[in-house]
Amino acid sequence: MKSDVLSTTKKDVSENKQRLLERYDIIRSFTEKLTETLETEDFVIQAVEETSPVKWHLAHTSWFFEAFVLKKGMPDYESLHPQYDYIFNSYYVQTSDPHCRDKRGNLSRPTVKQVFEFREFINDNMHKFIAGLDEESFREWEPVVEIGLNHEQQHQELLLTDLKFLLAQNPLYPIFLERTRDAAADPGPLSWVEFDEGIYEVGHPGGQFGYDNEFPEHKNYLYPFGISNRLVTNGEYLEFMNDGGYGEVKWWLDEGFSAVEREEWASPLYWIKRNGEWHHYTLNGVEKLDLNEPVTHISYYEADAYARWAGVRLPTEKEWEAASKKAELKGHFVESMNVHPAGIAKGVTAGDDLIQMFGDAWQWTQSAYSAYPGYKPFPGALGEYNGKFMVNQYVLRGGSCATPESHIRRSYRNFFHANARWQFSGIRLAKDLHES
Amino acid sequence: MKSDVLSTTKKDVSENKQRLLERYDIIRSFTEKLTETLETEDFVIQAVEETSPVKWHLAHTSWFFEAFVLKKGMPDYESLHPQYDYIFNSYYVQTSDPHCRDKRGNLSRPTVKQVFEFREFINDNMHKFIAGLDEESFREWEPVVEIGLNHEQQHQELLLTDLKFLLAQNPLYPIFLERTRDAAADPGPLSWVEFDEGIYEVGHPGGQFGYDNEFPEHKNYLYPFGISNRLVTNGEYLEFMNDGGYGEVKWWLDEGFSAVEREEWASPLYWIKRNGEWHHYTLNGVEKLDLNEPVTHISYYEADAYARWAGVRLPTEKEWEAASKKAELKGHFVESMNVHPAGIAKGVTAGDDLIQMFGDAWQWTQSAYSAYPGYKPFPGALGEYNGKFMVNQYVLRGGSCATPESHIRRSYRNFFHANARWQFSGIRLAKDLHES
Amino acid sequence: MKSDVLSTTKKDVSENKQRLLERYDIIRSFTEKLTETLETEDFVIQAVEETSPVKWHLAHTSWFFEAFVLKKGMPDYESLHPQYDYIFNSYYVQTSDPHCRDKRGNLSRPTVKQVFEFREFINDNMHKFIAGLDEESFREWEPVVEIGLNHEQQHQELLLTDLKFLLAQNPLYPIFLERTRDAAADPGPLSWVEFDEGIYEVGHPGGQFGYDNEFPEHKNYLYPFGISNRLVTNGEYLEFMNDGGYGEVKWWLDEGFSAVEREEWASPLYWIKRNGEWHHYTLNGVEKLDLNEPVTHISYYEADAYARWAGVRLPTEKEWEAASKKAELKGHFVESMNVHPAGIAKGVTAGDDLIQMFGDAWQWTQSAYSAYPGYKPFPGALGEYNGKFMVNQYVLRGGSCATPESHIRRSYRNFFHANARWQFSGIRLAKDLHES
Amino acid sequence: MKSDVLSTTKKDVSENKQRLLERYDIIRSFTEKLTETLETEDFVIQAVEETSPVKWHLAHTSWFFEAFVLKKGMPDYESLHPQYDYIFNSYYVQTSDPHCRDKRGNLSRPTVKQVFEFREFINDNMHKFIAGLDEESFREWEPVVEIGLNHEQQHQELLLTDLKFLLAQNPLYPIFLERTRDAAADPGPLSWVEFDEGIYEVGHPGGQFGYDNEFPEHKNYLYPFGISNRLVTNGEYLEFMNDGGYGEVKWWLDEGFSAVEREEWASPLYWIKRNGEWHHYTLNGVEKLDLNEPVTHISYYEADAYARWAGVRLPTEKEWEAASKKAELKGHFVESMNVHPAGIAKGVTAGDDLIQMFGDAWQWTQSAYSAYPGYKPFPGALGEYNGKFMVNQYVLRGGSCATPESHIRRSYRNFFHANARWQFSGIRLAKDLHES
Repeated sequence: MKSDVLSTTKKDVSENKQRLLERYDIIRSFTEKLTETLETEDFVIQAVEETSPVKWHLAHTSWFFEAFVLKKGMPDYESLHPQYDYIFNSYYVQTSDPHCRDKRGNLSRPTVKQVFEFREFINDNMHKFIAGLDEESFREWEPVVEIGLNHEQQHQELLLTDLKFLLAQNPLYPIFLERTRDAAADPGPLSWVEFDEGIYEVGHPGGQFGYDNEFPEHKNYLYPFGISNRLVTNGEYLEFMNDGGYGEVKWWLDEGFSAVEREEWASPLYWIKRNGEWHHYTLNGVEKLDLNEPVTHISYYEADAYARWAGVRLPTEKEWEAASKKAELKGHFVESMNVHPAGIAKGVTAGDDLIQMFGDAWQWTQSAYSAYPGYKPFPGALGEYNGKFMVNQYVLRGGSCATPESHIRRSYRNFFHANARWQFSGIRLAKDLHES
Repeated sequence: MKSDVLSTTKKDVSENKQRLLERYDIIRSFTEKLTETLETEDFVIQAVEETSPVKWHLAHTSWFFEAFVLKKGMPDYESLHPQYDYIFNSYYVQTSDPHCRDKRGNLSRPTVKQVFEFREFINDNMHKFIAGLDEESFREWEPVVEIGLNHEQQHQELLLTDLKFLLAQNPLYPIFLERTRDAAADPGPLSWVEFDEGIYEVGHPGGQFGYDNEFPEHKNYLYPFGISNRLVTNGEYLEFMNDGGYGEVKWWLDEGFSAVEREEWASPLYWIKRNGEWHHYTLNGVEKLDLNEPVTHISYYEADAYARWAGVRLPTEKEWEAASKKAELKGHFVESMNVHPAGIAKGVTAGDDLIQMFGDAWQWTQSAYSAYPGYKPFPGALGEYNGKFMVNQYVLRGGSCATPESHIRRSYRNFFHANARWQFSGIRLAKDLHES
Repeated sequence: MKSDVLSTTKKDVSENKQRLLERYDIIRSFTEKLTETLETEDFVIQAVEETSPVKWHLAHTSWFFEAFVLKKGMPDYESLHPQYDYIFNSYYVQTSDPHCRDKRGNLSRPTVKQVFEFREFINDNMHKFIAGLDEESFREWEPVVEIGLNHEQQHQELLLTDLKFLLAQNPLYPIFLERTRDAAADPGPLSWVEFDEGIYEVGHPGGQFGYDNEFPEHKNYLYPFGISNRLVTNGEYLEFMNDGGYGEVKWWLDEGFSAVEREEWASPLYWIKRNGEWHHYTLNGVEKLDLNEPVTHISYYEADAYARWAGVRLPTEKEWEAASKKAELKGHFVESMNVHPAGIAKGVTAGDDLIQMFGDAWQWTQSAYSAYPGYKPFPGALGEYNGKFMVNQYVLRGGSCATPESHIRRSYRNFFHANARWQFSGIRLAKDLHES
Repeated sequence: MKSDVLSTTKKDVSENKQRLLERYDIIRSFTEKLTETLETEDFVIQAVEETSPVKWHLAHTSWFFEAFVLKKGMPDYESLHPQYDYIFNSYYVQTSDPHCRDKRGNLSRPTVKQVFEFREFINDNMHKFIAGLDEESFREWEPVVEIGLNHEQQHQELLLTDLKFLLAQNPLYPIFLERTRDAAADPGPLSWVEFDEGIYEVGHPGGQFGYDNEFPEHKNYLYPFGISNRLVTNGEYLEFMNDGGYGEVKWWLDEGFSAVEREEWASPLYWIKRNGEWHHYTLNGVEKLDLNEPVTHISYYEADAYARWAGVRLPTEKEWEAASKKAELKGHFVESMNVHPAGIAKGVTAGDDLIQMFGDAWQWTQSAYSAYPGYKPFPGALGEYNGKFMVNQYVLRGGSCATPESHIRRSYRNFFHANARWQFSGIRLAKDLHES
């Protein structure tokens, strides 16, 4: 009997291993697919401190498996190069001394070819390592590998947004991937989906992977609120601009208006006026602005100012998550390789449903990124992943056209500084439904 | 009969006016009392952008009454000087163009004498104005005057903290006011006051003055938590320092550790080591550090790092306010003219009561400063007062030894950037009581 | 016989002492006279790093006598305050650790009154010290005192230019000293005074006081050159401006144009356009620009650009000094208390004489400040006075309306960075007379 | 007869064309040879603003011929790409709007391959253009081509020094070109070559190419001076370091010591201490420091401080040039592909001859970069080449191991800011021989 159980377990483990390895291969190779159209030169440059070179993303995601899995779990593991640990580390300061973040673009070596060799080397070792695990070890290491894969998916998105930022600096406006897209349909007037006062559960319900910052699921007392059925469009945002929005201090947070003046913001990032007409740089090259598409590449400050101008406000992350439970988890994600918000297809109308909750554009919430009640960081160096950034950043929800579909959840919390504009970040509105 | 009612009302109004004028005089003259020991030279300097010269505080608080009361409500009002409006404005950008904030210390004129004349001029006009109001007008203007008086009280505290910062830059370490204080008693070991899970009302209950940011009172779902019975002492903070706290990255928020390295922080602000012994600069001059006194002049980053090192966390502002309802609203405030946290008097023990909740030192909470559900700014230019700062700042509660006692409330929300250290800011701890 | 000689000598020494003490008193009291019209508040502020507070100038010039005379030569000398040495030192780093230069404005204490007491204390001690010197000691110490007095005179000029800079920041535009001046006469067209090719002696010929940087007198081979008979006027400079001079890159040194763009220069410092008419801030308050007055408060970059636009160039300091021997050493100096370039009196014409060579406005030369062949610094800490600044600064010659007449010489070398504008600095032109 | 002359002339022109084209091909192809060992990634990065990416150098030198020759002289010339003019321009602001200097490293496109295609395209057109010129046109265009070739040679040196700076940032310390070199011989004690007082001619004597800043040749009155027979060695510089040179303020110019403190300089650039022994990064990789080699990669500030410490001074550029006429124009240049100062070969002694005057290391002079008497810029946009930098830079003489031998002259004036360290810059000493 016992042996039966054992053999069954063995089968399960080897199936689980198989599933994990397949998932590993799919995710790891998708990262590489994203770089297929690039020239060697595109892999190298760090345009500003906030971004990283493409080849750094390729290597750093591999380093993660080396540092947190292979070096810890594989007794005879030897690094491909002793300096890679130093060069490809990021902020995991408990692990090793990081090469200064704003200097990542100063490294012409290892070459792109060597970085791909490093990836292959890690992949080979990861396969060997996982294949060799017994049941108990597998149970121990699977969650770490899972974090590594989620980490890789995060960097898939960053790789694309950093790349877009880099290419947009170039007066030649290089095209990443030529795609034909249909024009977005008119989404119709914005309407409000309403929610009652009461206690709402927010946070990851467990049962599948989630980051430490999504836990624990917990109760929140919410007041009656409305949330907009769809994202704000380029056309609507343009009305704010044409109404002098960037010059009118009353719409802005104090630090927001300082940013407007210091950075000379007068439109979303990547917008370009040519012969009096608004265009924007996309990974398809420079295109005429589609007024029906969701506005994107705006900062928290701009999202907040727009909402004030519109007489409403941004949702809290609690409201957003409560509302999201009414919306289907579908949308335009990176798998389509469009890497651009798609707008609404012809024939579809937004109507009374919550649409564009997932994919297309991350949605700024008015919630500062902070710990949930009872929050516990992942143990050890992995615990530095999220908690140490819980200050001066704002939560975005829903994923974007650069997010992998398999990576997003209702409870997923993205976070950036209030002045960040190089992500695919957009606006969903909210408003109070009670008298105060 | 009617006339009786009227006369009664008249009496009421004139009593109310009388009360307001008395309150006006008390608060306005207390501001001036704070500067009695100063030399003319002490009024002039702006040591860093965050602080303002003493004479600017004296003038700006007067300008407030000119801009929001006299210019709007007194038909024949004429300014003492047409440029004062420009010079003494701050961030109320709807009102007039502010003289750049970091240049306030470049103005040697108007002289201190002229600034006091300006104060007198405003006081005379305010008396005339209030005396001349009929019942209806009084009802309209009383709340604006009330805001002006609260604004003045806020600047009383800033005047002192800015002055302390200035004097501390001086190798001569000037004494503001010589006072004899008893040494603080040993407050005994820190213990925890516990609160159950449930819905707690937070926010201003109405009925007396409050800032717009304290409204509306609203329900919050809190999980079981403990809050420390007293403030963290200098002695306890020194243990953190002696344990290498400032050099250990794992205790720090990422931006906190950057601040430590950039600013070369190795102790709270104003601490000085002399011959191997810790001293600190106080408004009494340089004193040996009293280990039993509450630690103060620390940033949010330091408060957070200390809490992590201690294995617990900072309270949320909701928890703090919920707990505060169990504590008496008393403590060491500016009226004593000590302008230094007093510690615990001999014979008192902290025990199981919540002590030091008010006065002594502002207590950093882990809550980003943001709008309550249903928040509505004050109308017009006064509405710029609070809402426009609702980003990248953290809430402090409880008031300090530099706060007027009549100014503080349980619902009072102070807020500063996470790196601010020149306020009397200290630490109260909290911890979760539930399993997540 | 011998005794006769001795007695004669004694008489000489005591006469020399008397002369030195008189000179000491005249110069020291003139510094104080310059501050007679100031309010206490005007003494305190440092508007930008390059400038110092008035009270710092008053104290630092006294500190010089303490550090280089009294502490070294008076055996029983005791400082008035042990910290003054630290606070009022400047860059004489061999002497004691300086209080950081850009923080001089953070010191409200010692008060202005205490600083005047410090001056009196130093004066008393200097009188005692000099009175007590024997012949040999007098010969040793006289040159050091002489340096101290020249140092004081330099700071008289800086006190005024720093003060002007400070008051000009104030929207109230305070008046330093109300004076009535005649309008300047039309100086007539600019003409050229010509000099032949040959060897010219440049440098201090000895026999009276000079700074180390003026020595030794030495030969220079000069090519035939012309130098303008007078200074460039406001009116002529305005033509350059009206011709788009500030926007035309071809007139500018590369770093000059960067400064124009970075600092948004569009006119000389202190020029203000009111209702379409040019005014400028003077120590008399804001005045309408007098087109006949010499232009002043311009940087080396602007002087150089103007000269290029005019098709000529700035003189070298060798040319200037060679030419200066043809000019009378007279002009408008600080003793007049005008502290403003005076222009040409009515009835005078510039003609073929070199006028305005001294006083009115320092004249930028195209010569980088460097050592003469055979240069030897003063010995000891005094030698840090000049040599250590011999990099990245440009020589100005002739003195200004803020320079004491008794301080200036043909060989006198002033020097500032190419972007400095707060001195009374103007333009004299030169041109080549040979074919290259 | 006439026809004979003509035909002779024709022959001469075609010979001259031939000579020019050969020279063109040699210089242009040598630039490319310098990049043969590089990876594509090495061409792309701009490590700091002062440096440029390798591919920018390759393209910019080609752009020069396009902008100043082909676009002006070839009627039917069409650019390969309309944006290249904008992207590869530098500071020739009269020509077209430059792409901001500090952003050159943000351009991943055009690719390295495309840049080489651009070079070939320019070369083809230049060949066509020159081949098609008649005699008169050739006389007109030859000097412009000559400037273009000299410009290319300057960028050959910059390409190498910028590349060295880039590779040195990399913890992998990549090797540019592996070379075996003999250890330098002991050069023997430093001795002085003496020169008499008198008039010396300095500047380009004409007859061959020179930059505008070398003209006109002109007389200078020099005082008797000695100049060191050889360059200062690593070993000698190390004595200065070991004597605490970097910490002793008295050796330093005021701005020099500020740079030491701000930049935390404690050795020449590229020096690395490993296990207590000094190494330095070279284009051969990290090597143990050879004490007999000339010290290099030091700033003007360091050269000046070393000279002061040694009790002497740096030469003026006039002295250097006067002395150089006694030295042979030979040395270690870039043609050897060592790109490292070679030191003295075994068996050679420095002795009384002036050695190492050319090649090895540029020699800082104490002369600010300025115009010679009678200086005239090249006409038009080419005139922006040199004159506009004549402020706040210091002259270096003699060329280095990264300079082409055919590019250097006795009258050649290189110039950099006083804090520049990434050039091969070293020290030759001088001293006064007269009493002042």
